[in-house]
Amino acid sequence: MTKGRIFSGMQPSGRFHLGNYMGALENWVRLQHEYECFFSIVDLHALTSSYSDTSKLQENVMEMAIDWLSAGLDPEKNVIFVQSHVKEHAELALLLGMSTPLSWLERVPTYKDKLQNWSAQGKDNNTYGFLGYPVLMAADIMLYKATCVPVGEDQSAHLELTREIVRRFNYLYNREVFPEPQAVFSKAKVLPGIDGRKMSKSYGNTIPFGAGPEEMWERIRMMTTDPQRIKKTDPGHPEVCIVYAFHKVFNPEEYEEIGARCRAGEIGCVECKKRLAEKMNALLADIHTKREELSKKPEYIKEVLDYGAQRARKEAEKTMAEVKTAMNVL
Amino acid sequence: MTKGRIFSGMQPSGRFHLGNYMGALENWVRLQHEYECFFSIVDLHALTSSYSDTSKLQENVMEMAIDWLSAGLDPEKNVIFVQSHVKEHAELALLLGMSTPLSWLERVPTYKDKLQNWSAQGKDNNTYGFLGYPVLMAADIMLYKATCVPVGEDQSAHLELTREIVRRFNYLYNREVFPEPQAVFSKAKVLPGIDGRKMSKSYGNTIPFGAGPEEMWERIRMMTTDPQRIKKTDPGHPEVCIVYAFHKVFNPEEYEEIGARCRAGEIGCVECKKRLAEKMNALLADIHTKREELSKKPEYIKEVLDYGAQRARKEAEKTMAEVKTAMNVL
Ligand code: SF4
Ligand code: SF4
Repeated sequence: MTKGRIFSGMQPSGRFHLGNYMGALENWVRLQHEYECFFSIVDLHALTSSYSDTSKLQENVMEMAIDWLSAGLDPEKNVIFVQSHVKEHAELALLLGMSTPLSWLERVPTYKDKLQNWSAQGKDNNTYGFLGYPVLMAADIMLYKATCVPVGEDQSAHLELTREIVRRFNYLYNREVFPEPQAVFSKAKVLPGIDGRKMSKSYGNTIPFGAGPEEMWERIRMMTTDPQRIKKTDPGHPEVCIVYAFHKVFNPEEYEEIGARCRAGEIGCVECKKRLAEKMNALLADIHTKREELSKKPEYIKEVLDYGAQRARKEAEKTMAEVKTAMNVL
Repeated sequence: MTKGRIFSGMQPSGRFHLGNYMGALENWVRLQHEYECFFSIVDLHALTSSYSDTSKLQENVMEMAIDWLSAGLDPEKNVIFVQSHVKEHAELALLLGMSTPLSWLERVPTYKDKLQNWSAQGKDNNTYGFLGYPVLMAADIMLYKATCVPVGEDQSAHLELTREIVRRFNYLYNREVFPEPQAVFSKAKVLPGIDGRKMSKSYGNTIPFGAGPEEMWERIRMMTTDPQRIKKTDPGHPEVCIVYAFHKVFNPEEYEEIGARCRAGEIGCVECKKRLAEKMNALLADIHTKREELSKKPEYIKEVLDYGAQRARKEAEKTMAEVKTAMNVL
């Protein structure tokens, strides 16, 4: 017996980094043992903001699948698939949109924020598709009758809207077709970038997911340390040091000791970084190896995604038959 | 060689009346000989305004198919199908919505008008689906790469929007996937209702399409004539008489003569109505008989719609493959 059924998706918006991994994927790897999971690469969602340049879309989808499998998501245990491979996402979104008041969509807090951000960057993205983002998200979840949805900070408004759409559908068509999905909150570890700001592709401060030893060292070498420390014997302030923040996450066993030795001026920054690199490489060695292997087998990745799409479609078709019966669509 | 490919649809919103027939269907019956035609019962469009009561939807779809076949639309020559049977309508609408600016939809003249009308009737229909009506309509047309669209008075704004969406798609993805559809204007005959107002179900002044002799006589009997005429010998004013307006459409051969005899007080209103009934029954006899027959064969109607859906799907899948290649969707 599982604890319920999960749907969750990620947009394929470029190479994964370690921040993404710690923020969501690591959590999924844990959830797959407790829930029946539908994990989707939501390429249609990516189009809501990047419809005008789709040149990297296919490549990003493939990379994301490789990332997921390398991280340890099991394609037998979970249904792993690409959103656009299952037409029913569009079909259900269209039907749900019929009864979704515009005002519900306009009041989603992230909606106006994002439009403003884009507008500040000179990007006009005020499209019908972007406004409908939460409807498509509701369709994703409802299509599989998911009972649970892993939720990060800024997504709880979206989930609440899905719950409203569920209630409205069940009420309008007078039967309990859909369950109201519950939030599964996760304590995601937030990893800073190598310069101390939020880890983000646009800052160029990321550590790529699945980095090998050389790439890892190159990034760790550039990490910001305590700027007041010139010589090894200077007493350090580890709490302002990014390397130390990483030790906390990846090296909890030696964390206290390293802090003490830094404060006492007994460990040099290069040595400290080398120890971090060792730890991270050891922890990520399997992922790195698996990633290298999978990258050479695009045909296998496609098979995995086809298999997932077949399984997803089967569930989606069942739900759509119920939806059409409820709505009296011939 | 046909003159091009047509897509056109009608909403299944209740029993067809003669006004609908003269307004659009008669035109289609003519167009089927000149164009390659895709005629669709657009049930998804019907949901944009009637999502909250769908109890009659299936019945209305079946009735509409019977009406079309009775009127003489050939299900071999034309592709006749139900919109919701081809999932690609939803799929393409979703993809087109990604790049459709909200402002394009908000400025469609019929949009605000309809919302206001509904609002005056105490009906709140300000939904995401209703706003997206023109995107779905564009998807309908584009899915079959229609080059021509029969256009009535109030639809030319919608067609212009489809043309804009076509141009935007071809421009964004840098290839000529879609043709710009051209309007085929038709001089639809406007038939008044039996009380002289516009023929409309909501006025209760319609003549049902496929009415038999009794039903026909019942409706013609109730038609408004010249109110100043009491006795047969009173000189009449045919130009204010609804019966006369019908003679003009259905009995052009005797039209002049009847007008003269009415003005001269030489024909009684009952006789005049009987002559109209005779003419209309003769003209509609085939349609009435065919309608009666088809009404007894729901299985056959379903076969026809399945066959149409198969043919439509084949074209739709071809188009979607091109769309996905253009957009770089895996
Ligand atoms: S020794 Fe380690 S914790 Fe201390 S400042 Fe250098 S890198 Fe940071
Ligand atoms: S005679 Fe005919 S045209 Fe004249 S008023 Fe009567 S019904 Fe109308």
